[in-house]
Parts: sequence; C-alpha cells; structure tokens
Amino acid sequence: MHKPFILVTNDDGVYAPGIRALHEAVSSLGDALIVAPERDNSAVSHSLTMNRPLRVIELEKNIYTIDGTPTDCVTIAINKILNTKPDLLVSGINPGANLGDDISYSGTVSAAIEGTMYDIPSLAFSLAGNPPYDFEVAAAVAWKLASMALAMHLPPNTLLNINIPPLKAGEIRGIRFTRQGRRIYQNAIQETFDPWGRKHYWIGGGTVLWSGGDDTDEQAVRNGYISVTPIHLDLTNHGGLEYLEQQWKM
Amino acid sequence: MHKPFILVTNDDGVYAPGIRALHEAVSSLGDALIVAPERDNSAVSHSLTMNRPLRVIELEKNIYTIDGTPTDCVTIAINKILNTKPDLLVSGINPGANLGDDISYSGTVSAAIEGTMYDIPSLAFSLAGNPPYDFEVAAAVAWKLASMALAMHLPPNTLLNINIPPLKAGEIRGIRFTRQGRRIYQNAIQETFDPWGRKHYWIGGGTVLWSGGDDTDEQAVRNGYISVTPIHLDLTNHGGLEYLEQQWKM
Repeated sequence: MHKPFILVTNDDGVYAPGIRALHEAVSSLGDALIVAPERDNSAVSHSLTMNRPLRVIELEKNIYTIDGTPTDCVTIAINKILNTKPDLLVSGINPGANLGDDISYSGTVSAAIEGTMYDIPSLAFSLAGNPPYDFEVAAAVAWKLASMALAMHLPPNTLLNINIPPLKAGEIRGIRFTRQGRRIYQNAIQETFDPWGRKHYWIGGGTVLWSGGDDTDEQAVRNGYISVTPIHLDLTNHGGLEYLEQQWKM
Repeated sequence: MHKPFILVTNDDGVYAPGIRALHEAVSSLGDALIVAPERDNSAVSHSLTMNRPLRVIELEKNIYTIDGTPTDCVTIAINKILNTKPDLLVSGINPGANLGDDISYSGTVSAAIEGTMYDIPSLAFSLAGNPPYDFEVAAAVAWKLASMALAMHLPPNTLLNINIPPLKAGEIRGIRFTRQGRRIYQNAIQETFDPWGRKHYWIGGGTVLWSGGDDTDEQAVRNGYISVTPIHLDLTNHGGLEYLEQQWKM
C-alpha cells in the first residue's frame, strides 16, 4: 500500500508549537515533512514574495524553513524541495480562530489555498480561544480529519477550513459542516501618537459582531462543535453573473 | 440630486499614473478622494497591518496616503478619514492584468474586497499588457463602468473585477461578463546564488498556461473584450458542503 506523503506548513513560523503538534499528529498517517516560514507571518494573507530571492534551510531531517510567507513555502516546497507531489497538505494549527471574513486575511488558510491550486487536498486548522493554547485536543482532531481526507475525496478545487473550539476532548460536541459567516468589526482602529505628537492609527481591538445564522462556522464553534467549511478557489458569483448579463445593458 | 462620493485607491502607491488617471476619470461623476499606499504593495494580497501604527498624510486636497497596504487604506479611510460612507469604491488602474487565480494575490482586488465588506459597491480595474502602459482608454472604460455602478445595483456581497485589453478605443470589441479562469504557472521559480554561493529561489517568470474555457476573464481579454467578473465574499463551496454532509460520515 502506498504510504501517504504529507506536507505540513503554517503562518506562525517553523518553531510554533501549533505546527509541531500538527506534524506529530499526522506523522502516524504517513511521511510528514514541514516547510514553514522562519518567522510569524500572521495576516500576510495570500502574499507571494517576488521582489527578492528566498532561501531554504534544512533545520533538521524533514523540517525546512524559508524566509518568506506561507504561500512562498508551499510553492517552493512543491516545485523545488519535494520529489513527489504530496497526498495531503495540512496548515496550522493556528493559535486563534480563522472564521468568517477573517479567512481572507489568514496566512494559515492561504497556504491551503496554494496547495489546492496544485490539486493537493488541503486542510487548514485553527484552534479558537485565547492564550495560553493547548494543542493536544486540536492535534487529535487534526489527526482524525487528515485521515478522513486521505480516505475520502474533497470537493474539486476546494480546501477545508477547520476550526476547533477550545474545549476538552469530552466537551466537544462533534463536527459540523458549515458555511463561512460574516464578521463585522466595530471600532477596530485605535488612535495613538508618535513621540513627536503626530496621530497614528493602529488596526486591531474593537468589538466583533457576527451575522450569518446557525449554519455558519462561527456559530458552530461557539456552540462547541468543530467547524469544517469547504472553501473553493472559484470566487465567481455565478448567480451575480446571470444578474449582470440580464440587467446591465452596456 | 445627491452628488456621489467616490473613494479611489490602489496597490501601486499614491503617485502611480494608473490611480491618477482613475481619479481624473471618476472626478466627473462626483466628489472623488484618493486614499492610497505610500509605496508599491503589489502581491501583498489582502494584508492588514496590525503590528505597528499607521500614519495618514494629506498630500494635497482630497489626496491622502498611508504607510500601509491597500486594505489598511480602505479600512482607515472608511473609519477615520471620511465623514460619510462612499457611494462607490474604485481601485486601480493596475498596470498589468489581474485574471484567474492571480486575483487572490492582487492588492488591487483586495482593496475592492475590503470595500465590499463595508457594503460599498466596489470595482477593481486592471489594464492588461506590458509596459509602457497608456491609461487613456482604460480610464474612459473606468468612467463608463463607474457610472453604470452608480446607476445600477451590484449583486450583494460582490465586487466587480474588471480587466481592460491593451488596445486602442476603436479596437476594443465590447464588454463581456465573465467567470474567473484558472491560471497555471510552469517553472515559475528561478534559481540564483548569493555572494557566498548559497542557492536561493526567486519566484517569478516561467510560462503561463490557462484552463477554463471561453467564458473566462482571461479568454475575454485575450479576444479583445473588457472582462467584468463578479467576485463574491462568500468563499463557501455550497455544492461541496452538500457533498461533505452526505459522504463524510464522521
């Protein structure tokens, strides 16, 4: 039987405890190899570094790091480091949720988008909650979902964005297949001053409102379920396309 | 009659000729205000700067710049600079196409995504082709589509990604409403060496293959049409959701 080959990456950097927990979890499923950024790349979204060369360092056997973004790591891993195409890509485990509209800022999810572009089944894992994070339960969930992804098909051109509630194993109520919710930040920009008294803005903080309903990722995690959201690469609003063709007479 | 208020941004920086052409074009439709990054932010995708404060500088009347990303510019403009919510957001004109999967790397499109999150009708403009770019025809196209967007509704939670072929006015064959194509890069990573002889990788170059068919953005532009692709914020693969619920028995 073919031994699965699994690429492990993240956006928090190669030394983050979340990726080490993920690597250990999936190592029992096949040959698992880490290719991850040197440093924290949170909120870089789907950035590609094209204005400078990137260096690959083999830190130890099967653990590589690149001075770039998660997307850089995946594309260089697939094209330059690996000899064979991975059977699975897993990204994370991110400390903190990646839910709703936040997905489009997420480096964790971006790595899985890049894997999906190469037709590799790709899973992004995030652990909801606040520091300190304990990745033990999340790693067990990752193991289970990674083994499912190796056994079953994913929908075409689609990754799974997985968020795990910060609960003990016995407290998790199960898995919900969800859609992406809508997150609305309020007052999420703080004002501050530099040493010369000039006003600056610092993005962050504020309160968060959710809209979307019971079948969303956010609601599932809030209710104690693991949310599994299929995210596809085709961003076209096909219904909107029909509307434009009918209504917008140019 | 209400005079429209239009927010103009881009990812190439406030001094780029593309944004100045766009600003001039839409100024005849209402009050147009630029809030754009200080510097080129190509391929930053949907990055938000959260690890440092950002400074807003008013360069001249109605032209502001921020030492951040396109997404930073939009969120700070809406929350801190503007007194009223814009009726329209236009982003660009980007020198070079933003087609197919490249959309997810594009700062030009990201700015329009951020505008859409705030329920502002948002258009991203890119001029296909190679340098030197002449924005005259593209600016006229932007004027026409911006006036349409002010007169008509956009599909909900949806921006329009607009690509203009590098042709003379009389050569453009019209407008096509399109879906997002699939771009496949081949050998798009070059190898190079640092002064100490260590191998580095540089992302870029290579050949590009397209798949997707006649109704895609890429094919429309290649055939001399302006492509208008409705891109929605909901990344959920709803068909995939049904598949998972039926097939993945956990």
